[in-house]
Amino acid sequence: MSVTARVPQDEVSREAAGLPSPYLLFLGDTVEPGYAKTAFGLRDWVGERCVGEFVLPGGRVSTGLPALAPAQAAAEGARGLVIGVANAGGIIPSNWIAGLVEALEAGLDIVSGMHARLGDIPELKAAAERTGRRLIDVRTPPTGIPVGVGKPRLGRRILTVGTDCALGKKYAALAITRGLKARGLDVDFRATGQTGIMIAGAGVPIDAVVSDFVAGAAEMLSPAAASSHIDVIEGQGSLLHPAYGAVSLGLLHGSQPDSFVVCHEPGRTEILGHPGFAIPSIEAVISATLALGQVTSPDIRCAGISLNTGKLTPEAAEAEIAAVAARLGLPVADPLRGGAAFERLLDSCLA
Amino acid sequence: MSVTARVPQDEVSREAAGLPSPYLLFLGDTVEPGYAKTAFGLRDWVGERCVGEFVLPGGRVSTGLPALAPAQAAAEGARGLVIGVANAGGIIPSNWIAGLVEALEAGLDIVSGMHARLGDIPELKAAAERTGRRLIDVRTPPTGIPVGVGKPRLGRRILTVGTDCALGKKYAALAITRGLKARGLDVDFRATGQTGIMIAGAGVPIDAVVSDFVAGAAEMLSPAAASSHIDVIEGQGSLLHPAYGAVSLGLLHGSQPDSFVVCHEPGRTEILGHPGFAIPSIEAVISATLALGQVTSPDIRCAGISLNTGKLTPEAAEAEIAAVAARLGLPVADPLRGGAAFERLLDSCLA
Repeated sequence: MSVTARVPQDEVSREAAGLPSPYLLFLGDTVEPGYAKTAFGLRDWVGERCVGEFVLPGGRVSTGLPALAPAQAAAEGARGLVIGVANAGGIIPSNWIAGLVEALEAGLDIVSGMHARLGDIPELKAAAERTGRRLIDVRTPPTGIPVGVGKPRLGRRILTVGTDCALGKKYAALAITRGLKARGLDVDFRATGQTGIMIAGAGVPIDAVVSDFVAGAAEMLSPAAASSHIDVIEGQGSLLHPAYGAVSLGLLHGSQPDSFVVCHEPGRTEILGHPGFAIPSIEAVISATLALGQVTSPDIRCAGISLNTGKLTPEAAEAEIAAVAARLGLPVADPLRGGAAFERLLDSCLA
Repeated sequence: MSVTARVPQDEVSREAAGLPSPYLLFLGDTVEPGYAKTAFGLRDWVGERCVGEFVLPGGRVSTGLPALAPAQAAAEGARGLVIGVANAGGIIPSNWIAGLVEALEAGLDIVSGMHARLGDIPELKAAAERTGRRLIDVRTPPTGIPVGVGKPRLGRRILTVGTDCALGKKYAALAITRGLKARGLDVDFRATGQTGIMIAGAGVPIDAVVSDFVAGAAEMLSPAAASSHIDVIEGQGSLLHPAYGAVSLGLLHGSQPDSFVVCHEPGRTEILGHPGFAIPSIEAVISATLALGQVTSPDIRCAGISLNTGKLTPEAAEAEIAAVAARLGLPVADPLRGGAAFERLLDSCLA
């Protein structure tokens, strides 16, 4: 993470802890809810720190929070505007800039998890300097990441993996963390994406790491710990994704997970943003994760399946969960619905 | 590639074509031949452009070229010193710096394929400015790399993959390129590593690309072409390597190869630089490459095996080639030994 420049790793946590909340969630002119993961994640997991949302003309995605212009949000106590949407490629479109400048002029810092650096946009840089506000890039990885070593290390690790992007790997990891904490266990959520880092206050933006160092970054993120300690690591992408498989594989190898949970959204048939690419089967993801995960975690196993049933009725969700469990012979749950199925998934994570 | 700064992609070929040869090959104080891939590659494929080698005290690796101090090399016509060794992590050790400054003072430019940027080392930066020489970083990727799209594209592509790093993927790709050209076909070697780029005069240093963009970089490297055109793409790392699997997977997905050749070194039992990690079987690499490669190349197939038998006698090499061919039922050859076995491997690449 950086404030217009790269900072050493030991400053990452400090800065994240100091992110300027309460937040105003910026949704741009986005029309695809799947790209608004950051806004929804902040609303759902740290909603008490979100005062409202700011949507540009043409935008058709809403978090349900009050619509506020930057000046209104500042009057309500907001200290930072968070860019709550991510485009493929992480570019900040030119038609967003006036709105972002408006936020700086209203006294808000800007927090971004996109690939593009805020400070590289001349209008934003100038406005930040003029107003004395900060441009905070959560997605800039720490410097000095080593290459992976792959050596076995102490502590237990659980990784969420998926059949696609943006279908619940972060939510599953957060819910598993909360569920295990509720059992009195020593658990950390390890964030690998911009939203997770904003929620957790620390982490490594794994998809922004140079490919040679992805496994090393994952090793750094979940270091050796007491044998009773559990890290629940936020997965990224999918091994079977045409664009982001590299991120997923480096994270898998570096995380050395004892177990993994496959995240899937019933009813999604094509890879998000890649029309014509069928979603792989859960079985194919399990098979690939086992085959590749054994490189650094010889006894790796699938603890179960996390289904994102947000678009289903409770009855349909229950039927889908039962059907997938019967098909695979593994614990299956929607962590956001909780219940006995989710407790069985947690049991399996601990087995 | 950059001359102390990032440059746009369209300048890469121009600059590479203008690399300052003849070269003096710098071997530092390296004691592990496996790390001197660059020096050996330049000697073997563009030996006519290498005047000699420069080894520091303690070094125990030699290319067999004449030992020359920088001033002697300059007197023999050298224009550039090429750093011919790569450490894990790509760091330039402090005990190399005096020798590199000596080269600049002798009138040589420095060409590096390491992760560390030459211009980031104050002593080198100052010496380059003082002497008017250039610091050329071949490993800096072009700017503006897109994320992968994965869509089918015209042209034929062959990718070399491997059971480990540094065992012949570049040599195999160069030899296959040469063999197919000898048959009158329209073939390009596509370089993905520092040495390959120095040899080819163009390419993308794939392991230096941010992980989210590796597949996109591979798509850019081997663009759509006439259906009779063949790109032979230099592989990197191994899907089953504990540190570099991410690089290999992004390259596989982005390359969309019609076929691949698995490169292996008989007798190597452990992953280079990762003691305790057994070399995966050729079968495991074929299986992982097929399973993951199908994401973007549904009809991907293994064309055969390239064995690096450099440490074997001709008789032992022939026996090993025959044994692996019988075991796998695929064409097997050592491209550097050529012969009928290699012609059968080329036939299979074209099948």
